[in-house]
Amino acid sequence: MSEKSSVGVGLLGMGVVGGGVARILSEKSSLIQGLVGGPVALEGILVRDPQRSRSFDPPDGLITTDIDDILSNQKVDIVVEVMGGQDPALDYILKSITLGKHVVTANKEVMARHGPDILTLARKKGVQVLFEASVAGGTPIIAPLIRDLVANEIITIHGIVNGTTNYILTKMSKEGMGFEDALKEAQALGYAEADPTNDVEGIDAAYKLAILSTLGFRARVKDEDVYREGITRLTAKDFQYADELGYAIKLLAIAGKENGGVQVRVHPALIRKDVMMANVDGVLNAVEVQTDLAGRVLFHGPGAGDMPTTSAVTADLVDIARNVIGNVVPPAPIVLSESIGVRPMSELETKYYLRLNVMERPGVFAQILRILGDLQISIASAIQKENDDEAQRAEIVLMTHRAGEAAIQNALKLISDLDVVNEIGNLIRVEEWD
Amino acid sequence: MSEKSSVGVGLLGMGVVGGGVARILSEKSSLIQGLVGGPVALEGILVRDPQRSRSFDPPDGLITTDIDDILSNQKVDIVVEVMGGQDPALDYILKSITLGKHVVTANKEVMARHGPDILTLARKKGVQVLFEASVAGGTPIIAPLIRDLVANEIITIHGIVNGTTNYILTKMSKEGMGFEDALKEAQALGYAEADPTNDVEGIDAAYKLAILSTLGFRARVKDEDVYREGITRLTAKDFQYADELGYAIKLLAIAGKENGGVQVRVHPALIRKDVMMANVDGVLNAVEVQTDLAGRVLFHGPGAGDMPTTSAVTADLVDIARNVIGNVVPPAPIVLSESIGVRPMSELETKYYLRLNVMERPGVFAQILRILGDLQISIASAIQKENDDEAQRAEIVLMTHRAGEAAIQNALKLISDLDVVNEIGNLIRVEEWD
Repeated sequence: MSEKSSVGVGLLGMGVVGGGVARILSEKSSLIQGLVGGPVALEGILVRDPQRSRSFDPPDGLITTDIDDILSNQKVDIVVEVMGGQDPALDYILKSITLGKHVVTANKEVMARHGPDILTLARKKGVQVLFEASVAGGTPIIAPLIRDLVANEIITIHGIVNGTTNYILTKMSKEGMGFEDALKEAQALGYAEADPTNDVEGIDAAYKLAILSTLGFRARVKDEDVYREGITRLTAKDFQYADELGYAIKLLAIAGKENGGVQVRVHPALIRKDVMMANVDGVLNAVEVQTDLAGRVLFHGPGAGDMPTTSAVTADLVDIARNVIGNVVPPAPIVLSESIGVRPMSELETKYYLRLNVMERPGVFAQILRILGDLQISIASAIQKENDDEAQRAEIVLMTHRAGEAAIQNALKLISDLDVVNEIGNLIRVEEWD
Repeated sequence: MSEKSSVGVGLLGMGVVGGGVARILSEKSSLIQGLVGGPVALEGILVRDPQRSRSFDPPDGLITTDIDDILSNQKVDIVVEVMGGQDPALDYILKSITLGKHVVTANKEVMARHGPDILTLARKKGVQVLFEASVAGGTPIIAPLIRDLVANEIITIHGIVNGTTNYILTKMSKEGMGFEDALKEAQALGYAEADPTNDVEGIDAAYKLAILSTLGFRARVKDEDVYREGITRLTAKDFQYADELGYAIKLLAIAGKENGGVQVRVHPALIRKDVMMANVDGVLNAVEVQTDLAGRVLFHGPGAGDMPTTSAVTADLVDIARNVIGNVVPPAPIVLSESIGVRPMSELETKYYLRLNVMERPGVFAQILRILGDLQISIASAIQKENDDEAQRAEIVLMTHRAGEAAIQNALKLISDLDVVNEIGNLIRVEEWD
């Protein structure tokens, strides 16, 4: 490519984020031109329905329903994909890269499933692909991870990366609500969708963790590699007992590297209340990165929303546009290693919170302790809660010392087979901070 | 300059951070080479005493006591200044820029006092000057502010940017210690220096706020522009009353833009306990940036230490080294406005916490309220604390509604002149979050 004095942008999608990007490119054009070293102009906008009314009206003549109008336009240096969903976004992204166009995307699903392939293709074609908006909305996390912490080895990543579930858990924790009530309130406020599966089952969080792990550990981690448990089994009781023990409960996305492999998991976790992450409430997001040099660094802010997402997309756009004007393709920010695998969940070692509903009979506790002891699981504390004398039922809450995931799952099976155990109330992993 | 296949670094200072940078350049050389696109090699190291033993021994023949060995070395593309202090660091930085060398510095004092001039000279000479390590150690804040949040207008900046004072305040808050005891403990642990003035009087925090404000508001803000109050007047009582009212007390660095001017101040502040910033404890730092698009984004982590600082310096070094290899000088990340001034402290409007020691006599409270009322200061809550019946003294704690700084300072003078007022215990500003 020859030297350029301006930068052309093809925008795929004109929903709230696309509209935001078009608006910022127009309203802040002189700021952006100053930062980039030349004007940044929209050259085409792909929409599904040209007739739809929009919050921001783009300049005339840019709107098209044909992707080829964007892809074949030589003036388009950067394709900004804010359509969402895998299809046809993935196809458009791959075609753009193949044609030598740089890509900015906010698409967590595409990046979680196909990020490693996309990054590898981009490297081969000498183009940049940036996707800051795909995790934690407008809160910078991807750029700090791959640029500002570049000299560091990443040890662990902990994230609260789904605002919907964090809102629900905050309500359950602070107001004693049950899961269903809190979900309904989140739906009424527009924080949760009518079908909340993607959020409450941790699918959305797993997308984001796959992206962060790929970058942080330079490993090929996909969403399907992430062990995943949602928040639907949590009850008001769990929050109450956790609180008494000095813990909050959060849906955590956790990644760590050990023995040459990466462990990636999304599940509810007990966090000591004096840990910063325990204080991340409401729809806010936070990601904490533990490193060899910089220690633990935490990024906190809005995890979604049109304008925060627009902020992140525009930052990526400016970043690439500067390179287009400078006629430079920077080296790929990360090169993925082929040798780093994903470790099975059964290798996890951690502490556990275990809530059991048992018959109130002599020797019950001893039977449970025997099963745990036989599997090398030792107990840090045990509390008998809420006896229902009439029904002769009692609730037992146990906190274990560090134990193996395989052992605790074995123990759960054996315990649930005991005649004197009515129900396994819940098993929640405890995440420790130094 | 012609295309380069490698990058030469001149290191000024071989203390713990200089040693850290030299060690990382050696130990992580292949990682860094991959990121940069070519090898990054130390070409010279300026030290004061060549005989001194060091934690990391640099390659032979690099050490010099003569700055001209570094400045005249054509192989040196980037000068990394980690000497600290204003002289002779400032002179060396300016000379490096004038000679067309890029600069990475960790020097908060130099950047707070001469940042605008340094950045202006760098722009004229077409070189990069980066200084991520000058604020909050290894916690990324400067790069996120000028790159990741680039599309945003900054509304306010709130920072806990001095670990020493935050450690002291945490001890006073959590353990009821007095200031002197907490300071002694901080000194014993090496967190505070023998002469703690720079920390406890807010001088260090003012340096960092000047740097953040210059970048965030594109204004020429110097350390001397920052209104400054230290933490020496805080007592265990203030923490106790604040706690009862639902507040923490932190030494905050605060900047905000209003009416075309920037207000910059460092002082103790009451913060509602449910605000994230109130939970930043111990030696940790945090900076929260409020923006028009991304909302409130917070960065939290270690604010000092050799390795965190080394992490930040190395990230800046990699950033510039990539551009050296790519033979590109990116546009200046910020262009300072000449039209944005600093607003006087007297224009501040906020809420206030006022602790008074008064004679226990009829009508005392009424006299105080009359003075406040005459100056349009209204009271949100008032509590009479700790009567000492024998001495006929009482303590009154008032929380005001929003009021003007000029008015409250007038009121303080009039109140302290009252015969029935023994002492103005403390006046602490309350910082509100939406």
